This record gives sequence, structure tokens and C-alpha cells, in this order.
Amino acid sequence: MATWKAQVRVWLKPSVFDPQGRAVEQALHSLGYTGVGEVRIGKYMELRLEAASEAEAAAQVRAMCDAVLVNPVMETYAFSLEPWAKDARAEASA
Amino acid sequence: MATWKAQVRVWLKPSVFDPQGRAVEQALHSLGYTGVGEVRIGKYMELRLEAASEAEAAAQVRAMCDAVLVNPVMETYAFSLEPWAKDARAEASA
Repeated sequence: MATWKAQVRVWLKPSVFDPQGRAVEQALHSLGYTGVGEVRIGKYMELRLEAASEAEAAAQVRAMCDAVLVNPVMETYAFSLEPWAKDARAEASA
Repeated sequence: MATWKAQVRVWLKPSVFDPQGRAVEQALHSLGYTGVGEVRIGKYMELRLEAASEAEAAAQVRAMCDAVLVNPVMETYAFSLEPWAKDARAEASA
């Protein structure tokens, strides 16, 4: 069994209005960042999981996303996997 | 001037308690994903910006994170940049 670090990004489908993204976009414009557009806000999740292989880890992440982490009607997701480094938590704060 | 797509990940520093992450971890355990741990929930942001170079785009993203997108006391962040593809929005929903 190996330990994996999953980094999951969840964001609203393009057809879904994103009021939070719109608000952040306006705030950035008011701060002078007028060249910014299409701000979309979503969720970022990190988690550690045990799996015999990367393929099995990917299958677990997909199942968790489909079951509870992602709303399939409004959201879409992508994820990456890497072996859990001893200092994964420390590295995350670098 | 070129158009860039920034993907920003914001997450709580390891020293900060993450009640949302704890709740999701417990939900996953109750669904049978007992091999999951250290669930941390943060923000994922995508945005389009205009900049003459990738270095300038990176400087803009850093400035926006430091000014409004990230709480430096509790959060840390990382970002990636890529040229804005015509179908960047369509690609995001694939």
C-alpha cells in the first residue's frame, strides 16, 4: 500500500453564473487591475489517501468526487496525484 | 500585449485548524473511504489577464493575491500561468 497526495480543483461549469467571481473581478478592477476578466472561483482540496497503485488512487479520488466532493449538475473537476512526501504538509506551506 | 490564464490555489497554512476539511474527512470516512486523511479545503481561482510577458503576468497575479485574493495571516497560495487559449473556457469544462 502506498500513500498519495491528491490535489483536487473544482470549478463551476462555464454555463453557470458565478456571483463570487464577478464580485472579485469588480474588486480587482477597482484596485486598478483593469486587464483582468473571467474570474471564476471554485474549491481546492488536498487530501492524503492510501492505495496500492496510482490507478487505484485515481479511481478512489474519482469516486469521492462523484459521491460527495463535487456537484455534477453545476461543477466540473480535475485532480493530480503524487506520492505523499514525508514533508508534504511542510512543502504545502512553502 | 498577450492574454494569460492564471490558475490560483489558496489553502490554509498547516498550523491553521480546518473545520471544513475535518467535516469532509468525516463524511468520506462514513462513506467507507477510511484510507483518507489530512483533508484540507481551500479556494481555486481562474482568471484571464493581459500582460506584456509571463513575468509581468506573474507579478500582477502575485500583487493581486497579496492585495485581495489571499489572507496572508492564515493562507498560502500557489499559481500557474499559461497562454489564454481561444477555447480556454470550453477546455475548462472538459
